[in-house]
Amino acid sequence: MQMAMGSIGVFDSGVGGLTVVRALRAALPAEPILYLGDTARFPYGSKSPATVLRYARGNARFLVERGVKLLLIACNTASAFALDTLRSELEVPVLGAVVPGAEEAVACSRRRRIGVLGTIGTVQSGSYARAIHALAPEAAVAAQACPLLVPLAEEGWTNGDVPRLVVERYLGELHGSDPEIDTLVLGCTHYPLLKGAIAEAGERLFGRPLWMVDSAGAMARAARAALSQRNLLADGQGSLGCFVTDRSRFAEVGGRLFGGPLADVEQVDLG
Amino acid sequence: MQMAMGSIGVFDSGVGGLTVVRALRAALPAEPILYLGDTARFPYGSKSPATVLRYARGNARFLVERGVKLLLIACNTASAFALDTLRSELEVPVLGAVVPGAEEAVACSRRRRIGVLGTIGTVQSGSYARAIHALAPEAAVAAQACPLLVPLAEEGWTNGDVPRLVVERYLGELHGSDPEIDTLVLGCTHYPLLKGAIAEAGERLFGRPLWMVDSAGAMARAARAALSQRNLLADGQGSLGCFVTDRSRFAEVGGRLFGGPLADVEQVDLG
Repeated sequence: MQMAMGSIGVFDSGVGGLTVVRALRAALPAEPILYLGDTARFPYGSKSPATVLRYARGNARFLVERGVKLLLIACNTASAFALDTLRSELEVPVLGAVVPGAEEAVACSRRRRIGVLGTIGTVQSGSYARAIHALAPEAAVAAQACPLLVPLAEEGWTNGDVPRLVVERYLGELHGSDPEIDTLVLGCTHYPLLKGAIAEAGERLFGRPLWMVDSAGAMARAARAALSQRNLLADGQGSLGCFVTDRSRFAEVGGRLFGGPLADVEQVDLG
Repeated sequence: MQMAMGSIGVFDSGVGGLTVVRALRAALPAEPILYLGDTARFPYGSKSPATVLRYARGNARFLVERGVKLLLIACNTASAFALDTLRSELEVPVLGAVVPGAEEAVACSRRRRIGVLGTIGTVQSGSYARAIHALAPEAAVAAQACPLLVPLAEEGWTNGDVPRLVVERYLGELHGSDPEIDTLVLGCTHYPLLKGAIAEAGERLFGRPLWMVDSAGAMARAARAALSQRNLLADGQGSLGCFVTDRSRFAEVGGRLFGGPLADVEQVDLG
């Protein structure tokens, strides 16, 4: 794999961030991208802030050493727990998943009643509520931890009774918190795979379609803006190189999330 | 926490091994036990053999340095991928989860038709089939990977429609492989929490109650035999000290699996 000086670096707890890479490839087809999936220590969503920060620092260092011009934290949990620290410690610009998602949610929500679906860590961090309130102090934000959605998406169980019942249970909690929600943030890289089930359950429970905010697209737009501002946009052919800390099932599950085969995958040891 | 020379050391990928500790406390109430849950790198079930072996070595070293007299690998995946290596590398006797579970399955199964439920790693390793065939070469073994059962057990979703449907789907696959199964091995420390749902689905699908083999009880009996043979049984008051690599949710989820509060928990960094 080339060193690819001037790539966009993207790291994630595992394969989920490939939904972000997919959006990046669509929005910025000329860019070289280096992806690091920390599959050996996946998932981050139920781990403590200190552990997630330690892992995020290691991931960021690995990509910075490969000369990336912009660093994206695809994982919402890592964004919630590590973005501020990585920004203060690194010279390269760093984008997380939370602020782009919050911006899009505020742009979508007419009533300013926003529901956030996320991991236990993302929800406990309160980071979406903070990011949304920074943009719209009057907004009401209700957040729901959805720990079973990641394993469902990883297994490809995205249609049928099981995902329907699981999603209904989580959205039922959200409806109990605020039945006036009009916008849902899919605050985890895996959730776009369950978008159909989430949209259906949302319409059934809330009695109307909900706006669905997928932070992958929002992150890709934020990345383009960040590169454009700094005159760092590439004009090459574009490329994707993947590093993983454990190769197991990466091609299989990752291909599903990326929406195509992953050719260039190298295993690395981050300890 | 005391060094507790002469403890039984138990390690696991996370909290699941506390079902083994619970069985050990019941079978060997006079023994001091040191438990290590590698919660920062949990789960092992979908990771590669090389990664699981690396983690298992680190866990074993940690406990051996604390002077344990017997080492139990509570995690079935780690038993499948690391038992032989740890036995060859360590001087302390090492017990895994697979052989005790296989022995009990062979003792239970009249027809010699055995189903094994496990993680992706445990099933792919083929270790239960090997252990069962070593005892009963004529036995037919069908194994089913059940990746959603661990997250369901961790979340405490052990009753109701969701676990029922998930368990039915996995047991339906097993029934398709061999409708004559009479014995089911719960080949993962978390599965005893779903025993009710598994037993019900088994009876419904197979048309009769199935023997359910829970390796926690079998491991506790194997541990007692191993200590007794070596004249290493303790006659003290018994104790339990827990180490975790990430404290997050350990007391909450662990207490559910242990069946009581966990008082003595220390966080350690294994890298």
